[in-house]
Amino acid sequence: MENVQGYQVVPIGRVESPLKTRSEAPRQGDEGAPSAWLVFEPEVAEGLRDIAAGTEIIVLTWLDRAARDELVTRPRDDPARPITGVFSTRSPDRPNPIGLHRVEVVATEGLRILVRPLEALDQTPIIDVKPVLAPAAER
Amino acid sequence: MENVQGYQVVPIGRVESPLKTRSEAPRQGDEGAPSAWLVFEPEVAEGLRDIAAGTEIIVLTWLDRAARDELVTRPRDDPARPITGVFSTRSPDRPNPIGLHRVEVVATEGLRILVRPLEALDQTPIIDVKPVLAPAAER
Repeated sequence: MENVQGYQVVPIGRVESPLKTRSEAPRQGDEGAPSAWLVFEPEVAEGLRDIAAGTEIIVLTWLDRAARDELVTRPRDDPARPITGVFSTRSPDRPNPIGLHRVEVVATEGLRILVRPLEALDQTPIIDVKPVLAPAAER
Repeated sequence: MENVQGYQVVPIGRVESPLKTRSEAPRQGDEGAPSAWLVFEPEVAEGLRDIAAGTEIIVLTWLDRAARDELVTRPRDDPARPITGVFSTRSPDRPNPIGLHRVEVVATEGLRILVRPLEALDQTPIIDVKPVLAPAAER
């Protein structure tokens, strides 16, 4: 889209989930998604050391089975809804198919972190993890 | 970090902001950040058509002036805080330097969208825009 080539996003891990295909996956985590393991690369272990069970985190994924050439979509595949610009939807099909998931950490086992609920498919690349921000006065 | 090369993230626009350097930028938007324009590429115009003033959106950026080789950091550069894994902080310095910003849409003018508050620096690439999700029952 620009003359620049863009930037290289590098997977830091993968999702291990019972969800294998898009048709099995709920549209959002809080619509019945299962627990899933986040399995990280050994190279990023130091970055994970303060992630604790019982906290909430934000997981960013690269939705590698999405279509990158769609700019409009029908939300939730619902024929009653109008065609909508993808930046006003959470459709995985978008120019940069980044998934944004707020989940609870259930358990940590070294490079493996169990979270719930997560609607991402099995083997989806993980690209970042962030804390949920506390109110400004408590940071 | 993996044998795979990774994925190409392509800027869909740029931030226009009075903030020119990291030392000028607040750590989070709600810590005194200014309004800023999101200026999009013409190729993604269709994807923006339903973004309306007065709504809240989530903007994802590529923090192109960040260091990608840091796995631990001292939060807020505060000497009283312990060294912390980057995935438990919002530090821009992280393997994939993706910024996550929840902002209000102040105005839209075609490919230009005015938002507030935004702590991203001038010319930061924009890589995605998402709606804030309504409660599950209202989707």
